[in-house]
Amino acid sequence: MHRIEVDAEIDILDIDKRLAAENRDFLKKHGITAINIMGATGSGKTLLIEKTADTLIDKVKIGAILGDVIGKADYERVVRRRVKAEIINTGKECHLDAHMIHHAIEKFDDVDLLFMENVGNLICPVDFDLGEDYRVVMVSVTEGDDVIEKHPEIFRLADVIIINKVALAHAVEANVNKMIEDARNLNAIAKIIRMDLKKNIGFNEWLEWLEEALSRSK
Amino acid sequence: MHRIEVDAEIDILDIDKRLAAENRDFLKKHGITAINIMGATGSGKTLLIEKTADTLIDKVKIGAILGDVIGKADYERVVRRRVKAEIINTGKECHLDAHMIHHAIEKFDDVDLLFMENVGNLICPVDFDLGEDYRVVMVSVTEGDDVIEKHPEIFRLADVIIINKVALAHAVEANVNKMIEDARNLNAIAKIIRMDLKKNIGFNEWLEWLEEALSRSK
Repeated sequence: MHRIEVDAEIDILDIDKRLAAENRDFLKKHGITAINIMGATGSGKTLLIEKTADTLIDKVKIGAILGDVIGKADYERVVRRRVKAEIINTGKECHLDAHMIHHAIEKFDDVDLLFMENVGNLICPVDFDLGEDYRVVMVSVTEGDDVIEKHPEIFRLADVIIINKVALAHAVEANVNKMIEDARNLNAIAKIIRMDLKKNIGFNEWLEWLEEALSRSK
Repeated sequence: MHRIEVDAEIDILDIDKRLAAENRDFLKKHGITAINIMGATGSGKTLLIEKTADTLIDKVKIGAILGDVIGKADYERVVRRRVKAEIINTGKECHLDAHMIHHAIEKFDDVDLLFMENVGNLICPVDFDLGEDYRVVMVSVTEGDDVIEKHPEIFRLADVIIINKVALAHAVEANVNKMIEDARNLNAIAKIIRMDLKKNIGFNEWLEWLEEALSRSK
């Protein structure tokens, strides 16, 4: 049993790497900044895309590929914000992969900024390069202040780590400083943002980082 | 690529079913009630085991097998409650399987109640029978009130569905009634419990269900 699993994984990851490189070429050719957003269900990934669109949509053309096991709720939320979107229902798969993105990417050749919203969990997306420029990992304080130390791999590879819903920290007895410390211990260089999207905390810091990232792609 | 994945999955699930049946025989032989607890990180799975132990440990011998990708934080929490425990670090795997349980189960031959706390997410554990008697799925209102409709499979197979942290529903703008309705639409017979473990809401209802389950195993 174990042998079969390992073999299959190696094959799949090799193919994923090759397709991710092709995705990256496509994105570069069209001057697109691509961001893989990872995080548990309810951490705030879709709301971050919505609020970003509300602020930037008149000067930046935004696309979003939305991964979910089933349904199109997230898709409907972002298209209302004039984001060009595509849903990928992954069924039993708990992550997006470069192959899925490869099928979806062509219609996004005219966008400046492409979000790839991964399937909601902190485990499966780690190994799969989608061809993105940046990896953003969102957690909410309501997931418990041990959520970062429990999932080290995904935080090690992040360019931005967002700790969301900080206004609820007291109500759920979460220590935000401990979470920031855990994130910093795992990742010395990532941008770490304390955020509460519903209270407008940390959103400007996110926009500053994003505008800098966009200007680097031009 | 797809062919390899499917073949491997069929093999693994066949082996899992056989080992789950062996686990079930072992549990039955020793009069143990086994509960597979599933739910996202931070939904309250470990706290439910802790509070259950606080209430029942003097009359019920309790064991817990704790699945986590890394670390032993949950293990330390439950052993402090005099729960006999074993940690299973799953590494890159996002679920427990019957094989892992098979290795761990022998030392639990003297318990009355065995919790199998699954790895924190609502996707991967669905297909893996561990040999349990009951499946409990916990969600927290902080995961968003669309979390149930986004993960139908895991709720369809549940015996108990717990909606936790209901005291925070207003703060996170979650509609608990919608969540209950979604759960009922997916599963006509599951016991559904509104809960807030930190406010002692719904805990007695859980204990009543549990004591009934324990008496059925005797």
